[in-house]
Amino acid sequence: VKIGGNVIDDQDRLDAFLRGFATQKARSILVHGGGKIATDMGAQLGLSAKYVDGRRVTDDATLQLVLMVYGGLVNKRIVAGLQGAGCNAIGLTGADGNVIQANRRPVGAVDYGHVGDVVSAGVNIALLQLLLENGMVPVLAPLTHDGQGGMLNTNADTIAQETARALAGSSAVRLVYCFEKKGVLQDPEDEASVIREIRQEDFERLKAAGIISGGMIPKLENAFAAIRSGVCEVIIGQADDLHLLVAGKAGTKIL
Amino acid sequence: VKIGGNVIDDQDRLDAFLRGFATQKARSILVHGGGKIATDMGAQLGLSAKYVDGRRVTDDATLQLVLMVYGGLVNKRIVAGLQGAGCNAIGLTGADGNVIQANRRPVGAVDYGHVGDVVSAGVNIALLQLLLENGMVPVLAPLTHDGQGGMLNTNADTIAQETARALAGSSAVRLVYCFEKKGVLQDPEDEASVIREIRQEDFERLKAAGIISGGMIPKLENAFAAIRSGVCEVIIGQADDLHLLVAGKAGTKIL
Repeated sequence: VKIGGNVIDDQDRLDAFLRGFATQKARSILVHGGGKIATDMGAQLGLSAKYVDGRRVTDDATLQLVLMVYGGLVNKRIVAGLQGAGCNAIGLTGADGNVIQANRRPVGAVDYGHVGDVVSAGVNIALLQLLLENGMVPVLAPLTHDGQGGMLNTNADTIAQETARALAGSSAVRLVYCFEKKGVLQDPEDEASVIREIRQEDFERLKAAGIISGGMIPKLENAFAAIRSGVCEVIIGQADDLHLLVAGKAGTKIL
Repeated sequence: VKIGGNVIDDQDRLDAFLRGFATQKARSILVHGGGKIATDMGAQLGLSAKYVDGRRVTDDATLQLVLMVYGGLVNKRIVAGLQGAGCNAIGLTGADGNVIQANRRPVGAVDYGHVGDVVSAGVNIALLQLLLENGMVPVLAPLTHDGQGGMLNTNADTIAQETARALAGSSAVRLVYCFEKKGVLQDPEDEASVIREIRQEDFERLKAAGIISGGMIPKLENAFAAIRSGVCEVIIGQADDLHLLVAGKAGTKIL
């Protein structure tokens, strides 16, 4: 289950989500993004977010910031919240137990700085299974390491997808992406217009018709890539609906 | 092995220490303090450290700060450094896997804020053993949790001592406290005057003679308390001498 900034930034909503998450029966892994806290804390420290072609550049100071906010503040707030709800959470960055190794993105036209792309077979399946088998719930921060002492910033959607793909080789995996909408919408203005299921052929048709556009396109492309790598289903919807999403009663299912 | 601010604040010295630590053959746990980084970062965020009777008070903003700096920045720098040195480190706060549970210190004459005293049987021995048996090296930040969703600030010396005591029930435990001096000194001005061994009766004599005074008294009292709870030996010395300390060729041994 991946959650993003819109849940993390709202303490009451986050607490409610964590209480619900804690009652899940399936073995679970939670992946979290950063949220506005990083930007707010960066502003307090006199750092302004730098973007090139819409992608954030992680310079030395920004890496320090995300280590503090994603690895410390947000990750521990979630872990402590889950512990309080009776769920034995364990927070991990990619460096912890070498759970996710990445390569620093090569410098091409743009130097993205300390940004990591997960290496092939870079997810430590054995560690995740050891923790899950011992009743723990891994909580993954959007940070990886290069195996040579360097930490790297990696998108939370990517962490979720790579983890799901890696585990799909040995387990039946369901990947739940929580975002700000109730699901993929037929009409972006109408939260009641959730498209319940999308197959590859539907996706092509919906793209051609302009119903799926902008940032939803890479999100769905990633979802289909996950399905092709053996993930049983990908569900896209709102964090508040977690139990309904998992039960197939809310959100959009990618098949 | 516990390390403090003097090593953590010096990146070259920390790197050298971590490379040496990584080559240890005994199953190991590393406990780290905070260092000046927390104070520096707090200053940048407009927070000034508050003390009552020489003890730091952890208000809401300070808790956020230490979660970021101890739990994020320092812990992940150490974990990534150890990974780079070929040591499979896994960073943990007390909340992670419920590894150390504490009670918020009761408000008496002073309210220390979000400060935790480790509860009886509060160290999760089973988790530490599971990680050690699977070739991992736990790296403990000086943070605990209350089991109800709250994170707490706990002194790193205390974390080291409680962990050593808890493991002493089932394993032969050596506790190494690294601090700024070469060991307990006969003459505080002379680093060559290390007292090689101190037994309880020596301690009383050295205290009476004023050779051991000030902050060394509680440090040694904690060391003797650890010995009484079954820890095989406690060694006090400098991080740079780690291998010599463990080999009994440097530092002060408490017996």
